[in-house]
Amino acid sequence: MKKRLSIADIAEALNISKTSVSFILNGQAEEKRISKKLVDKVVQYVEEVGYKPNLLAKSLRTGKSNTIALMVEDISNPFFASIARLIEDRAYQNGYRITYCSTDNDTAKTKDMIGIFQDRHVDGYIIAPPEGIEDDILSLQKNNLPVVLFDRYLQHADTDYVITDNKAGTHQATNMLAKNGYKKIAFITFANPQVQMRDRLQGYLDAIKQNNLEHFVAEVLFSRNDQDITKPILDFLNQHKQLDAVVFGTNHVGACGLKAIQQLGLKVPDDLAVISFDDYDVFQLHSPPVTAIAQPIQQIANQVINLLLNKLNGATDILQTQQIVIPGQLHIRSSSAAKIS
Amino acid sequence: MKKRLSIADIAEALNISKTSVSFILNGQAEEKRISKKLVDKVVQYVEEVGYKPNLLAKSLRTGKSNTIALMVEDISNPFFASIARLIEDRAYQNGYRITYCSTDNDTAKTKDMIGIFQDRHVDGYIIAPPEGIEDDILSLQKNNLPVVLFDRYLQHADTDYVITDNKAGTHQATNMLAKNGYKKIAFITFANPQVQMRDRLQGYLDAIKQNNLEHFVAEVLFSRNDQDITKPILDFLNQHKQLDAVVFGTNHVGACGLKAIQQLGLKVPDDLAVISFDDYDVFQLHSPPVTAIAQPIQQIANQVINLLLNKLNGATDILQTQQIVIPGQLHIRSSSAAKIS
Repeated sequence: MKKRLSIADIAEALNISKTSVSFILNGQAEEKRISKKLVDKVVQYVEEVGYKPNLLAKSLRTGKSNTIALMVEDISNPFFASIARLIEDRAYQNGYRITYCSTDNDTAKTKDMIGIFQDRHVDGYIIAPPEGIEDDILSLQKNNLPVVLFDRYLQHADTDYVITDNKAGTHQATNMLAKNGYKKIAFITFANPQVQMRDRLQGYLDAIKQNNLEHFVAEVLFSRNDQDITKPILDFLNQHKQLDAVVFGTNHVGACGLKAIQQLGLKVPDDLAVISFDDYDVFQLHSPPVTAIAQPIQQIANQVINLLLNKLNGATDILQTQQIVIPGQLHIRSSSAAKIS
Repeated sequence: MKKRLSIADIAEALNISKTSVSFILNGQAEEKRISKKLVDKVVQYVEEVGYKPNLLAKSLRTGKSNTIALMVEDISNPFFASIARLIEDRAYQNGYRITYCSTDNDTAKTKDMIGIFQDRHVDGYIIAPPEGIEDDILSLQKNNLPVVLFDRYLQHADTDYVITDNKAGTHQATNMLAKNGYKKIAFITFANPQVQMRDRLQGYLDAIKQNNLEHFVAEVLFSRNDQDITKPILDFLNQHKQLDAVVFGTNHVGACGLKAIQQLGLKVPDDLAVISFDDYDVFQLHSPPVTAIAQPIQQIANQVINLLLNKLNGATDILQTQQIVIPGQLHIRSSSAAKIS
């Protein structure tokens, strides 16, 4: 076991005072008028012996841990996993590491984890928030801890946030299906009262109304077991045989929806046209490839980490918040091709 | 801002000594012969005012942080994201939280991160290791910090590990293709000298030899950009038009391989039968569905966290290591159906 060198060890080895070593290692040499020669001597020795300051003790002194908490709904969801990866890269390049958790959209678990992170002196928070954590976020901000929300925001908390224009996304998708000749277009989504899901529903309803069509909405309960999602979609499609198109509200609903369509033996797009929110490999590789409302993952990750780093390095004030809404991109593929009537 | 109560505040409010408060909060009341009445008084007050001990200070005193480091190759890979999710759940249930990083299979980055985690008093390590970190692992073990490896192991480090039986997986898959009448079977994989990838190649080669067939192996370089993987696979398939089947070495190579097959307009399995290592939505939803060698993700995650928890709670000694090899499962789908000759 390689013992970590202490400041006292360095001072003894070089026969200088502990105070001088401490000032030099903390970058206060100039301020404390320590000679360049002494600084070089200490720096050279430290490089030779590989001294590393005890980060935990340092964090107790400074209150900083160079750690960012990343709280996503579910790290195994490809949308969150991809965002997490990009944020992790940018954080690492800027000297921060990530500590993360999956909230499951569970308010109590999220509050609990924020408490733990705060006790551990986490410097900043990136959260895809569940409902009901406004007070916890305000408390973080009052403690001068920056918070950036993404994917959804909380109406009664004034924070930085970065979201996709959800309403415009489903509006454009539904509108295209109508223009392509589809008359019975359903929207299948998770039962979730949060703003991002309400906006997606609203975009669909607006487009349906504009095109004087009938609306068909199915809300399924979230489950960790895909079969519990696939089954109600299958039942809904069976009970609405008049449907000629469907928009799925998330990648997860979309993947389970495709399984239901596969089990029903429906042909896409001849029997049922398909568009899903969120783009990923499953939609691109499906036969036929599935049209998707892609969230701009790289842009979201960049904006999120930029907002947070600006607050962490003091470039923007903690209470000076910015709300960024990024348009989604409709990746048009053959699953929504014009209807052959 | 709600100020955190200190032990001194509690002592002052109740007019008792700080030492008594400290003993009571650290569960040493009985040992220190403190009266039940005083303990109740302190506990009741602490519950009323919501005192929480500063975990960071506690961790400096005890050297424990209730944190497990999880180091995967890439958190955005569905295999690692799924394992991470399951490990996170089990860790949380057992009072631990996860701090994670993607290593990119980069030895220097991994060593760097282990150093940072160690400075932060992380209690245990779960690592899908790159090559060349044997010394760092030995050093952790010497410091009584348990390490469990998964997905691959290091030949010169005696650790707990949990892996899939990689050789048997590709052997069984290749053998089935041969039995189904395919004669020109290729293996397309990442150029990676690590044990898990060598074993997958060896399983393929053994089955090819047993069936007296010719072998075709392509190794592509890993890239974060899918097109850099798809392109060499496309070129290889173009240069080997005699192939009638292919086994892909990982989910990532498999997904890119399917894109190459799509671009070439090849029909699966009539023009080219397909099997891939690792199962996920892409393979299940592909038309036709793709046969996959599924890694038992739930079992791997459970074994990994069990091994680590047993060491963390002292049930097994740090140097008493266990190696667990779990068979993969061949999920047979129509992409490898018997050849029509």
